Amino acid sequence: MTVAPHWIAVDWGTSNLRAWAMDQDGTVLDQATSPQGMATLAPAEFEPALTALIASWTVASDTQIVACGMVGSKQGWVEASYTYVPCAPAQGLTKAPTTGGLTVRVIGGVAQKSPADVMRGEETQIAGFLALNKDFDGVICLPGTHTKWVHVSAGEIVSFQTYMTGEIFGLLSQNSVLKHSVGDGFDDTAFATAVSDALSRPQTLAANLFAIRAAGLVGENPSTVATARLSGLLIGAELAGSRPYWLGQNVAIIGTTTLARLYSLALQDQGVPVVETDATRMTLEGLKAAWAQTKEPA
Amino acid sequence: MTVAPHWIAVDWGTSNLRAWAMDQDGTVLDQATSPQGMATLAPAEFEPALTALIASWTVASDTQIVACGMVGSKQGWVEASYTYVPCAPAQGLTKAPTTGGLTVRVIGGVAQKSPADVMRGEETQIAGFLALNKDFDGVICLPGTHTKWVHVSAGEIVSFQTYMTGEIFGLLSQNSVLKHSVGDGFDDTAFATAVSDALSRPQTLAANLFAIRAAGLVGENPSTVATARLSGLLIGAELAGSRPYWLGQNVAIIGTTTLARLYSLALQDQGVPVVETDATRMTLEGLKAAWAQTKEPA
Repeated sequence: MTVAPHWIAVDWGTSNLRAWAMDQDGTVLDQATSPQGMATLAPAEFEPALTALIASWTVASDTQIVACGMVGSKQGWVEASYTYVPCAPAQGLTKAPTTGGLTVRVIGGVAQKSPADVMRGEETQIAGFLALNKDFDGVICLPGTHTKWVHVSAGEIVSFQTYMTGEIFGLLSQNSVLKHSVGDGFDDTAFATAVSDALSRPQTLAANLFAIRAAGLVGENPSTVATARLSGLLIGAELAGSRPYWLGQNVAIIGTTTLARLYSLALQDQGVPVVETDATRMTLEGLKAAWAQTKEPA
Repeated sequence: MTVAPHWIAVDWGTSNLRAWAMDQDGTVLDQATSPQGMATLAPAEFEPALTALIASWTVASDTQIVACGMVGSKQGWVEASYTYVPCAPAQGLTKAPTTGGLTVRVIGGVAQKSPADVMRGEETQIAGFLALNKDFDGVICLPGTHTKWVHVSAGEIVSFQTYMTGEIFGLLSQNSVLKHSVGDGFDDTAFATAVSDALSRPQTLAANLFAIRAAGLVGENPSTVATARLSGLLIGAELAGSRPYWLGQNVAIIGTTTLARLYSLALQDQGVPVVETDATRMTLEGLKAAWAQTKEPA
């Protein structure tokens, strides 16, 4: 059976591309994924990549396509300008240049002047979360390569802070002297201890990190412990810094990845009540909300 | 004129190899360097590498060769075991296995059980510093990929702490999203501000790092400022952690590199009196002190 979407939802990040064939009522008819993320494409290659991905679907000339993510960055298909906080998330759609008849609109990111900060993609997940939780007042945490802490009130993003914890974890575990120490497996107790250590003394982070390596040289340090400790020290230091965000707050974590589970565990150990939500669902709900905008009279 | 060293001093680190032809009175007769660091060599390749480097020198069968650095690690020529603190630096020499008639002894590193920590190579520089400053009581800072803070008293290393700040700087400036922000040039004022920011709030390090990138997206952030700020945030966070080492202490910095200058500037801004010393000279003085051990009756 050929799928004829009423509209198409697209999540186009740095390292991959996902598209959903959507019915008018928000039902997902089909989905397709590709490794052709923003980082792999030159500006002229976006339209062919998307066209190829959805080639099996029947796309009419008036089929709306709404995309979020790094596709809207300066290095993407079209630069979808930032909206500055305080603002509702996922406002403002920018038409991408096309030659083959597709109508593609890209959701703009959210920025903050001081302290300087940016997000692109997360604003759509936040919009999705708010579409499902209209009266939410609190903090949303979006774990990832660049984890975001977002203060939301009255349907708007009030302020946010990005920690490059995930990227640092990747670099240290793969490219630093710690690559000799880490490995498969994960010791939950070592993680909890490391979070606690870093929360109380975040200033010795770079020394505690080296000690992971040294512990294996002056004694035994199993890779399950080393890996968990690396993760716990970095997340613990982040929790020390983001304390003004989570302390005494309702925290919703968007994500069900292993990483999201670790944030959830660490916050719960601090006595913070946490709600975990599915990231893909939030992305789709946010894209739906943005698509609804395209139907409003201009 | 052919050089006939009385003995040979060798500094064999991870990424390079240096040898000095020494006279009996400690005069340097000649020197030679090679990019064949420990990391580039299999165990059986150390002897040929050294033999080739000093081929132009007349080496007698009783010419002593004394080496320090990663050549003595498990992945090196021979494992020269650690001495544990508290201890005098650069004690204990381990003979390397040779087939061609060279007599090579390798200086062992220094280790600490708790918190786990290790050094290899720095102990020789510390021994050199103490040979020149016999009554020194205070803290020695050795800036580098893995910066060491070393508490020295009564000729012994009492305790030490390693920060992997330099390695993190390299990874972030070359392999992270910050590579788009950094570049040539260095803004001294931005460095000082970043040190101060990180000293007062080390816990937001990973957020302040991301803000370097974000500042360039929501406005202008010249690479001279971005580079200096990256360096300043990392060194400032290290100074926050190592405060128990330097506060109210005599601090001697071993090193005259650009990095050593930055540590010196940052410490002086905190009102700490700093002495800067030449790292190569300290290495040679330490090797001389170790060579003197080989002449003692066994």
